[in-house]
Amino acid sequence: MRILVANVNTTASMTHNIAAQARRVALPDTEIVPITPDFGAESVEGNYESYVAAVAVMETIRSYTGLYDAIIQAGYGEHGREGLQELFDVPVVDITEAAAATAMFVGHRYSVVTTLDRAVPMIEDRLKLAGLSDRLASVHASGLAVLDLERDPEAAIEAIVAKAGHAVDHDRAEAICLGCGGMSGLTARVIERTGVPVIDGVSAAVKLAEGLVAQGLSTSKIRTYAPPRPKHFANWPPTRR
Amino acid sequence: MRILVANVNTTASMTHNIAAQARRVALPDTEIVPITPDFGAESVEGNYESYVAAVAVMETIRSYTGLYDAIIQAGYGEHGREGLQELFDVPVVDITEAAAATAMFVGHRYSVVTTLDRAVPMIEDRLKLAGLSDRLASVHASGLAVLDLERDPEAAIEAIVAKAGHAVDHDRAEAICLGCGGMSGLTARVIERTGVPVIDGVSAAVKLAEGLVAQGLSTSKIRTYAPPRPKHFANWPPTRR
Amino acid sequence: MRILVANVNTTASMTHNIAAQARRVALPDTEIVPITPDFGAESVEGNYESYVAAVAVMETIRSYTGLYDAIIQAGYGEHGREGLQELFDVPVVDITEAAAATAMFVGHRYSVVTTLDRAVPMIEDRLKLAGLSDRLASVHASGLAVLDLERDPEAAIEAIVAKAGHAVDHDRAEAICLGCGGMSGLTARVIERTGVPVIDGVSAAVKLAEGLVAQGLSTSKIRTYAPPRPKHFANWPPTRR
Amino acid sequence: MRILVANVNTTASMTHNIAAQARRVALPDTEIVPITPDFGAESVEGNYESYVAAVAVMETIRSYTGLYDAIIQAGYGEHGREGLQELFDVPVVDITEAAAATAMFVGHRYSVVTTLDRAVPMIEDRLKLAGLSDRLASVHASGLAVLDLERDPEAAIEAIVAKAGHAVDHDRAEAICLGCGGMSGLTARVIERTGVPVIDGVSAAVKLAEGLVAQGLSTSKIRTYAPPRPKHFANWPPTRR
Amino acid sequence: MRILVANVNTTASMTHNIAAQARRVALPDTEIVPITPDFGAESVEGNYESYVAAVAVMETIRSYTGLYDAIIQAGYGEHGREGLQELFDVPVVDITEAAAATAMFVGHRYSVVTTLDRAVPMIEDRLKLAGLSDRLASVHASGLAVLDLERDPEAAIEAIVAKAGHAVDHDRAEAICLGCGGMSGLTARVIERTGVPVIDGVSAAVKLAEGLVAQGLSTSKIRTYAPPRPKHFANWPPTRR
Amino acid sequence: MRILVANVNTTASMTHNIAAQARRVALPDTEIVPITPDFGAESVEGNYESYVAAVAVMETIRSYTGLYDAIIQAGYGEHGREGLQELFDVPVVDITEAAAATAMFVGHRYSVVTTLDRAVPMIEDRLKLAGLSDRLASVHASGLAVLDLERDPEAAIEAIVAKAGHAVDHDRAEAICLGCGGMSGLTARVIERTGVPVIDGVSAAVKLAEGLVAQGLSTSKIRTYAPPRPKHFANWPPTRR
Repeated sequence: MRILVANVNTTASMTHNIAAQARRVALPDTEIVPITPDFGAESVEGNYESYVAAVAVMETIRSYTGLYDAIIQAGYGEHGREGLQELFDVPVVDITEAAAATAMFVGHRYSVVTTLDRAVPMIEDRLKLAGLSDRLASVHASGLAVLDLERDPEAAIEAIVAKAGHAVDHDRAEAICLGCGGMSGLTARVIERTGVPVIDGVSAAVKLAEGLVAQGLSTSKIRTYAPPRPKHFANWPPTRR
Repeated sequence: MRILVANVNTTASMTHNIAAQARRVALPDTEIVPITPDFGAESVEGNYESYVAAVAVMETIRSYTGLYDAIIQAGYGEHGREGLQELFDVPVVDITEAAAATAMFVGHRYSVVTTLDRAVPMIEDRLKLAGLSDRLASVHASGLAVLDLERDPEAAIEAIVAKAGHAVDHDRAEAICLGCGGMSGLTARVIERTGVPVIDGVSAAVKLAEGLVAQGLSTSKIRTYAPPRPKHFANWPPTRR
Repeated sequence: MRILVANVNTTASMTHNIAAQARRVALPDTEIVPITPDFGAESVEGNYESYVAAVAVMETIRSYTGLYDAIIQAGYGEHGREGLQELFDVPVVDITEAAAATAMFVGHRYSVVTTLDRAVPMIEDRLKLAGLSDRLASVHASGLAVLDLERDPEAAIEAIVAKAGHAVDHDRAEAICLGCGGMSGLTARVIERTGVPVIDGVSAAVKLAEGLVAQGLSTSKIRTYAPPRPKHFANWPPTRR
Repeated sequence: MRILVANVNTTASMTHNIAAQARRVALPDTEIVPITPDFGAESVEGNYESYVAAVAVMETIRSYTGLYDAIIQAGYGEHGREGLQELFDVPVVDITEAAAATAMFVGHRYSVVTTLDRAVPMIEDRLKLAGLSDRLASVHASGLAVLDLERDPEAAIEAIVAKAGHAVDHDRAEAICLGCGGMSGLTARVIERTGVPVIDGVSAAVKLAEGLVAQGLSTSKIRTYAPPRPKHFANWPPTRR
Repeated sequence: MRILVANVNTTASMTHNIAAQARRVALPDTEIVPITPDFGAESVEGNYESYVAAVAVMETIRSYTGLYDAIIQAGYGEHGREGLQELFDVPVVDITEAAAATAMFVGHRYSVVTTLDRAVPMIEDRLKLAGLSDRLASVHASGLAVLDLERDPEAAIEAIVAKAGHAVDHDRAEAICLGCGGMSGLTARVIERTGVPVIDGVSAAVKLAEGLVAQGLSTSKIRTYAPPRPKHFANWPPTRR
Repeated sequence: MRILVANVNTTASMTHNIAAQARRVALPDTEIVPITPDFGAESVEGNYESYVAAVAVMETIRSYTGLYDAIIQAGYGEHGREGLQELFDVPVVDITEAAAATAMFVGHRYSVVTTLDRAVPMIEDRLKLAGLSDRLASVHASGLAVLDLERDPEAAIEAIVAKAGHAVDHDRAEAICLGCGGMSGLTARVIERTGVPVIDGVSAAVKLAEGLVAQGLSTSKIRTYAPPRPKHFANWPPTRR
């Protein structure tokens, strides 16, 4: 099967890392197709950038002409999943939700460790809307910006481990989700240091997407995610440059 | 004071009607500045269109060069309010939230009557995220599309009154919010028929926005709605055509 | 328009201060009519006093013979708003709810800083009942009694700022409500010190009340707030002395 | 032990009936002391009357000079319990809460059948505040006013049984609380007709009060229910006539 | 009346202590019948042991041939209450729920102090399912194992008092439940040290069970707790050895 | 990999059907090992039988001497998952939770259609505890007993389709979970008739279990699911007959 894995920012190296992580857990006959949005911000760290990313991912996949069996939205705490579910017939898996749903199978409560403070309410809101926050212990910011993760992975690990430890000891988390697509490569190192299961959203999403396809399941089109009604758009989509 | 009232679709007559309703309740020295997005759908009836509208409203206001004291997002159940709060320093009021907050001051529970069935979960989700759904009795669809409201207002009133009556009698609503920017003109007629307070989101938003400005209040910039960080965008915003 | 602003205690200087704050934000053609209850405690700091205040405000307004367009209940976390809604046809706005509803338009989460520890659960309960506690981060007591606020405003500001800072840093509040009618005059000083929006309930209530009147909205009389049924009362109301 | 059982209205025959029901379930050495408030409405069916009743019960017990071990507030869905807890050292049991807490030991979910439609939100609010609404299936109004219960008990039984049956079949209730102090005598007849446990609030309160006294437990005075602070009251309490 | 009080572990001295505490609060004509399960663990401190205890209590009572009017399940945070409610016609009271329901009548919020850290989520889950967690402030572990309580009661008291104090000061608890059947004897000592009401689950359950019997109430058999359907069991129950 | 799929009843034909369904969706190199409990009821339709099944599954797997990588608990709405998580190091997936978590990826809200009315609260309780009930629209009983499903599959399909249709139209479900291990074979027929995604818990659990193993994730042992402490058991486990 072919799975589109859409990065939400326009930084190609990050798309590359996400795809590499996806391939690490994918089945041998699953082809991972990385998608970098045609437009948008080099990193997504706030609502404005996230909304732009949401439409960028939608339009980029709309203009993709290959075949595929599932879509993964690989931004943590970002907007847009509902739009993808409307536009496409294949299953759509958001990494924020994939990580949370997976964490709940391995721990009584889970926490998320993310990048900047401003991402915390965004992640809380996405999990609340998804109906997956009842067993959420906490969301903590490591203080590192998205692009810092690539620049100094050792510092990132230290910061993440500190916050994960706090979540386990004080918030009673029993599993940790790494709350950024760019943290995918760090999972093993964090597990080693914390002693609890650490979930990478990209990996979780790949296995969930493969599972949905294997079960022949896709988005219900009966109401919320019915295809857009035919109508006139002005000046949209943007012309590709 | 000057308030930007942003329609979410590109239908100019609808912007006109929304602005007319806003002017009806605005203070004498409040200037209502209607905004029609530079791009997007002729009506917004689903998540894809709503996400496009969200960025369209953001970009259109970003390119607006006049002065203003507050922004009203005049789409019911739509995405994007958080992005506006990040981008601009003035208070931002979403009509979905304005109507709900207002309804809670006049009734123990409230219901929303909207257009199509597919808008129901979108409105429920916005109210849930806004923390205003605890006293929400129900959201009902009248079955009319957004543009039908202008075409046949008499049929619209009948359909809205029927659903409002059901909400009052069976869901125990004590106030009704009209769940579409395009329903603004119909409030008086629906009140007359239902005997309970009927809230128009545009009117509610104008009074709330005026009130925030009068109190010298605006969006907190300390965390969730901090200004976007400076960064590189690829191919964005779209060139104006 | 004329708005009755009812203090909940019998201390006239406090009624005066509340009215002064109300006038500061009121429209030029809004007349603020201060009401001091005919009976009750010199300050309201607990449930017993609050229940007496509730009926005192109701009876005092019942015996008021002037005309008015709205009523503001200017006690923070107090009982009685539902009774006022039953008895009178004009809109009733409680300052606890007004502050909370206003705070939610300017911050993702809000906290309340009040007087004594014993007021904390009262405020939490009022907000819970009002359906406005979903985005409530915390309620903190400054440790100052109601009448201390007038006696030593500098100490009050220090104590409030300390608790507000804690709420912002540790409870992730993004806006602060000052949780006592007697704190009205301190808003500007607290904003200056905390860097987040600070909401005064009296001001918020005035603007909401003006807004409701401008929209032609008042309390729904269909069920919860229907007028009292005609019936015999023994020894009530108390004879005025 | 001696238990004060306070009716909330001034109708002596109703106080008599409530006391009779209390005596039916009380231990042989429990003395039931009926209290009729010194002032207030002949029946309590709304918020205004309920607030007056709250202070009337408080003042009437304050002026009671005998000894007692517990207080029962025998109004269903009424205000005032927190004030009683502040004023007195003995345990205070509200019949609304007593019935609900008892129902949860005998059924997975419970419903309340009360008098008039306007009582429904009052009961819902009391249970919500008490933290006992999680397993509340529904509150239904029989349509009978409080004083109708005495006038035509047969009609009352039919109306109650009809609503109880609806609650069991459609709302999945497994136990029914009779939601009015004046329904106390009807329990046996309703059980016979519905086949599920039917809880009378007065009976439940008597057994809970006896149990608290037997365990040596009373209201925590550490915060919410600390005794009122010493202070000046104007024109209060009302002079007895 | 006769009440079966079932210990959940097989340590006879603990059954003895629980029964002694039950007798201390029981009415003179209440006979307490202690039950030690026929099989299971010497102490129950986790889910596996708790599930075994659940069926052990059920089978032990099924094979009990005497008469009885109520059953108390005297394990804190344990599984099995619903099964007892299905199997037997008399009221069943779980001490976890009895303590919580009782605590809510004497404090605005309550906390539980239990034995080991691993018991915390079990207690939280039982209270959540029972619909009694809305006013739960916190559950804390004293760090003492069940059998340590008997071995060193002084150390137990110190550890419990420390956690109770933390709950009152930081979690705003106003009443404390001792979260282990084996803590029954310690209540008086903990009250003395904390100044807030301390609830022993066994005592609370005895009074609730007596109250239910006095009211003629027992488990609703209409749905959730209907008697088991007749059917074939393989190799069950285990042969008694 | 090898996955133990544990039926909860002792009916071998049902174990066979469950295993067949598991094999239908399993990866080619996944070996499905069916487990029938050593003791217990021929069908599990209530709490007593479910508690016996819980320990039966635990003991049967404890005595299983082969190797395995994951455990699936194939009873819908049953007790015991937490015990399995304590006892074993491999991931444990309960079909009730697997179906719900999967449904939430394909529909905005989901419903469950189960067997008998008495199973409804059990399923609701399991989903509530698992933190997966926020987007649960409803649980409906088809009225068919577990063993009826095998006897008359055509009648079962009709009954399930009727309830599923009701859930979609009236409860606003967008996906349906078949709420019984014995319904596994019916999924395709129900999808065909309802037009919404239909989730079989066994299939969902197989894919989730495979996914957890592929990610190297297993149950967190830090607190709730720590291995049982070493201790003495009396008369347990039962001797195999």
